[in-house]
Amino acid sequence: MLKASCLNGLITAVGADAVFTDQASCIAYSYDNSACQQVPAAVVFATSHAEVAAVVACCYQHVLPITVRGKGSSTTGASVSVAGGIVLSLERMNKILALNVANRTIRVEAGITNLQVQTRAATQQLFWPPDPTSQAYSTVGGNLACNAGGPHTLKYGSCRENTYALKAVSGDGSTLLTGANTSKSAAGYDLTRLLIGSEGTLAVITEATLKLQPAAETRALLQAGFADITAASHAIVALMQNTDIPTSIELLDATSLTMIANYAKLALAPSVTALLFIEVDGSNATIASKIDHTSAALRRCGAIDIKSADQPADIANLWQIRRALSPALRHVADSKINEDIVVPLDKIPILMQHVETLSAKWSLTIASFGHAGNGNLHVNILYNKVDTAQQQRAESCLAELMDIVIDLDGCISGEHGIGLTKQPFLTKQYNQATVNLMQKIKQQFDPANILNPNKVFKQP
Amino acid sequence: MLKASCLNGLITAVGADAVFTDQASCIAYSYDNSACQQVPAAVVFATSHAEVAAVVACCYQHVLPITVRGKGSSTTGASVSVAGGIVLSLERMNKILALNVANRTIRVEAGITNLQVQTRAATQQLFWPPDPTSQAYSTVGGNLACNAGGPHTLKYGSCRENTYALKAVSGDGSTLLTGANTSKSAAGYDLTRLLIGSEGTLAVITEATLKLQPAAETRALLQAGFADITAASHAIVALMQNTDIPTSIELLDATSLTMIANYAKLALAPSVTALLFIEVDGSNATIASKIDHTSAALRRCGAIDIKSADQPADIANLWQIRRALSPALRHVADSKINEDIVVPLDKIPILMQHVETLSAKWSLTIASFGHAGNGNLHVNILYNKVDTAQQQRAESCLAELMDIVIDLDGCISGEHGIGLTKQPFLTKQYNQATVNLMQKIKQQFDPANILNPNKVFKQP
Repeated sequence: MLKASCLNGLITAVGADAVFTDQASCIAYSYDNSACQQVPAAVVFATSHAEVAAVVACCYQHVLPITVRGKGSSTTGASVSVAGGIVLSLERMNKILALNVANRTIRVEAGITNLQVQTRAATQQLFWPPDPTSQAYSTVGGNLACNAGGPHTLKYGSCRENTYALKAVSGDGSTLLTGANTSKSAAGYDLTRLLIGSEGTLAVITEATLKLQPAAETRALLQAGFADITAASHAIVALMQNTDIPTSIELLDATSLTMIANYAKLALAPSVTALLFIEVDGSNATIASKIDHTSAALRRCGAIDIKSADQPADIANLWQIRRALSPALRHVADSKINEDIVVPLDKIPILMQHVETLSAKWSLTIASFGHAGNGNLHVNILYNKVDTAQQQRAESCLAELMDIVIDLDGCISGEHGIGLTKQPFLTKQYNQATVNLMQKIKQQFDPANILNPNKVFKQP
Repeated sequence: MLKASCLNGLITAVGADAVFTDQASCIAYSYDNSACQQVPAAVVFATSHAEVAAVVACCYQHVLPITVRGKGSSTTGASVSVAGGIVLSLERMNKILALNVANRTIRVEAGITNLQVQTRAATQQLFWPPDPTSQAYSTVGGNLACNAGGPHTLKYGSCRENTYALKAVSGDGSTLLTGANTSKSAAGYDLTRLLIGSEGTLAVITEATLKLQPAAETRALLQAGFADITAASHAIVALMQNTDIPTSIELLDATSLTMIANYAKLALAPSVTALLFIEVDGSNATIASKIDHTSAALRRCGAIDIKSADQPADIANLWQIRRALSPALRHVADSKINEDIVVPLDKIPILMQHVETLSAKWSLTIASFGHAGNGNLHVNILYNKVDTAQQQRAESCLAELMDIVIDLDGCISGEHGIGLTKQPFLTKQYNQATVNLMQKIKQQFDPANILNPNKVFKQP
């Protein structure tokens, strides 16, 4: 229950028709695409930067936590108000403010969906590189909060590489301006990248100037099987030594392939224990030769089964194996710890050996797949919820995996962020002095600790 | 004069043979490549991260300013100890710690020169994109401190786009670790980019993991003359709409060309008032067709005089006009305010009209040239030192120019940074709340305000 003075402050900020405290509305905004749920004290809709600033100023005065929400597509509980307080929805801030084709930039409100940006940019043969699979409904603000990537991150970068400027509101209601609408900027500290990926803990992003890039005319997909992970890793390294790299390189490991084979019909040579999907893009005139060059490179690295497709229907067909994975995982166990660790490219085979050892040691099925071109693998530790001993083994296994990742000079998260679950590992990744500084930065942006409190780290 | 206890502390940190207080040594480290000079109280050489940490801890205890210095190539006074205290030279920290070809990374000490990195990377057909013209003697640490770019920034990015991880020492002597040795990383706040471009005010960078990229086989240069700046700007925009953009697009404006023509023999059509240099790279097999495509695009935009070269001697020949500019500038005046403003690409013609108006209003010669592909122009306001009235007019002209840049949605600095000279304009670029937050961030990293004090902004 909100205090009356607080509720009145919120109504003054955005109008009575944009503040909901009824149970039905609050429940509708109590969850996202994760398992987390927490009913907020109110749901508040803002339609402008000024309204966001007024809402934050009111919450600052009343020390009321704010969880900012786009469309609630997060799989990590990022938009669930776990610390109580209000949900601030930006879904009504969905305008394109300016499209500058010559400068290849688009300025948008934070509540616009990724797909709306792509659709508008595509009318000018441009695109915004971050393209998470949730792009049809996830918002730009949400993408920026977690530094989202997508299939094309390998070649074109994530949010941090494709955002020029931000308008935001810090935790005391102040308006912040970062960056500039230009491709170069060296004026003071880089607050743009500091806010991107800060998981809503530093400021509420209300507007963004995004870097658009010219879209390639066409794409093609190759699928290549390997007898072992070491050969597949060599192929990844070889493909990344070109000046024109693939847009994405995805891997399915032996466990993933076995699980898929158990539940779906696979047209794969039986000796294949590691499978790569490689997407290349280019012009209509050059795409065939790119497929040839990529195939040749794969063969040189020992690929034993190469398929390629350059027509949408054939490409979709090739992806079938990848799409069969999620249902197969659910056949094995009802729950999983899905990590998104990253290792240097040459360390992928060593990592996979460790994963095999961990799987045997803890008697757990572990399926690994993902964005191998970046060394970014989703290591899925499977367990059944009813089996609490198995769940505990999964937790122990995870802790050992994280130590291995850090030993291999890797990173505990490539794209999911820290949220709540990975906090114990943050000081292992860096050191206490570095995490202390992050906490002190948080205190400067959010002195009352009301912006997504306790995410990334707890305040001391 | 240092207190004896402080001097002893420094000697304990690095050894007696690495602390110099004699006048000759201190004078040798009193200047850089700018007009600034200030003799430090001591010059201290560190040979390891641990020694840097010990020096900073000592200075923190004695509240003694530290100016970190690589090879002193800065043109902005960045490595001059204007606030007194010591110069900490990292030039003896010049080791390559690890080259990982498969992961395309190189880990180096901060005092290594850019060229040493390039030379080592080139043995594996790799390169580090930042390549300032000072690369033969400027250090990686210095490059990172000012987020250096270079001719290839347009296509390949600056330091912020090409650095994965840092090791550094904050202002109280603590060791900081940022990022990871991987191409993706989403663990906590992005301190890597925060330190890059912070002009030595937040921490002393001691080690860096740099992102290497595969080097193109060959390069070619095109030179294209235009009857007016608007046509040249259209050509820039057209070239940037390709998926494969030039490595650099440089502009010389009408004033620059007139000045060069007065002092050098130019083989240019007399109707040319704007000249572009366009560098493209690619494979030996494709470079000729890239030249053809680029030429065709330039002709479509009205280029009246196109030359191209794909052999080193011919390329050097084409650059002659550009190289004639600096001597020509010195013929006109002995001093200049050399700004590095940035505007969105479509605003270049409007900016140039404003510059013409300012030139007439203030009776000053203003020559503009530079990295037009990024909208980043070096606007050189020329004046003679003896003429104090002229110098004052130049200062007034600069202030008006900065307002125009901000009105055009641009940035007051594309690559030089803020240093001392651009501080008055920082709050115009952003707002007071944003600059206040930058100052508060500085206080967290450097509580005693000893790291390059009063650069970027004065502490409140």
